[in-house]
Amino acid sequence: MKLLEQRILQEGQVRPGNVLKVDCFLNHQLDVELLDQIGVEFHRIFKDDGINKILTIEASGIAIACMTARHFNVPVVFAKKAKSKNIDGDVYTSKVHSYTYGRDYDITLAKKFLTPSDKVLILDDFLANGKAMKGLLDICKQSGCTVGGIGICIEKGFQPGGDELRAAGYKLASLAIVSEMSDTGLTFREQED
Amino acid sequence: MKLLEQRILQEGQVRPGNVLKVDCFLNHQLDVELLDQIGVEFHRIFKDDGINKILTIEASGIAIACMTARHFNVPVVFAKKAKSKNIDGDVYTSKVHSYTYGRDYDITLAKKFLTPSDKVLILDDFLANGKAMKGLLDICKQSGCTVGGIGICIEKGFQPGGDELRAAGYKLASLAIVSEMSDTGLTFREQED
Repeated sequence: MKLLEQRILQEGQVRPGNVLKVDCFLNHQLDVELLDQIGVEFHRIFKDDGINKILTIEASGIAIACMTARHFNVPVVFAKKAKSKNIDGDVYTSKVHSYTYGRDYDITLAKKFLTPSDKVLILDDFLANGKAMKGLLDICKQSGCTVGGIGICIEKGFQPGGDELRAAGYKLASLAIVSEMSDTGLTFREQED
Repeated sequence: MKLLEQRILQEGQVRPGNVLKVDCFLNHQLDVELLDQIGVEFHRIFKDDGINKILTIEASGIAIACMTARHFNVPVVFAKKAKSKNIDGDVYTSKVHSYTYGRDYDITLAKKFLTPSDKVLILDDFLANGKAMKGLLDICKQSGCTVGGIGICIEKGFQPGGDELRAAGYKLASLAIVSEMSDTGLTFREQED
């Protein structure tokens, strides 16, 4: 998606540890107009896949999921990173390692919101090693739902998560795939529109 | 907002400890069509207040903020509940006590996203004791920005947060104010539309 690649080139900042900061528009401050265009693009790609629910994980994924769900007219459900009193005991859980936060954490999702009759589109802002995505896929497997597709805004193509998911046969669409990144700049993997 | 009150009566569940579960549509599974109507209502109430940015706090607030920001054509910025490597050191911080999570936590917001030239609408899903809101207002004070208004989906009117904010002179709009709640049901404070 050229619009997203342009924003990354204009405003993204490379930090030590393979961190790509896009907090100006994607995961701290949110450019809602850009998110709407991202939603239009995910709908174009997945509109014929029978999606009846969008699954994501807090926090940044919620913005992308909501702005995409509008175009599908389906609900969003998001996995939580901390167990709160507001979640009943009857939840799916999976353990995730976060490189960003430097720790393991459990993600939880109330069982009533994901069932074998659901066909979900999983959305998130970043895909690198794919640890969070594996947690979401584990929850999908526990629920018996069908994964109709996976949509990612920015994939770090030099880390294994994306290609592992493709090899596993998932319909994965990453709107921008960073193939190389350094203090001097970054390049994107060529993709067909 | 009658539409929201009706959904709370239909699907809300009262739990011990003054917990009102609305996870079917507001803060775990998200009814994006309802959120859009909530956004329309917040825009109706605050459209003449010179809002140039919407401020909220992860996680549930992000959905409400994004679906509202569309109608204002302004960006969203959300305070984070955990400090990640992706946030630079130059942040506003404030300490918040969460009754839901049963602990204190710091909220952080990158300084570059809130300045004295901003006039913000603060949005969140719930207002009860107002601890999270006080944290957001503290961050606004640190930044020197102007608080143009506060929009809440569900206020627990039997807890002091909302009336304290009104007494302090803030333009606070709560779309549903629960005046009483028990296992046998709940009632709403009458409001003019």
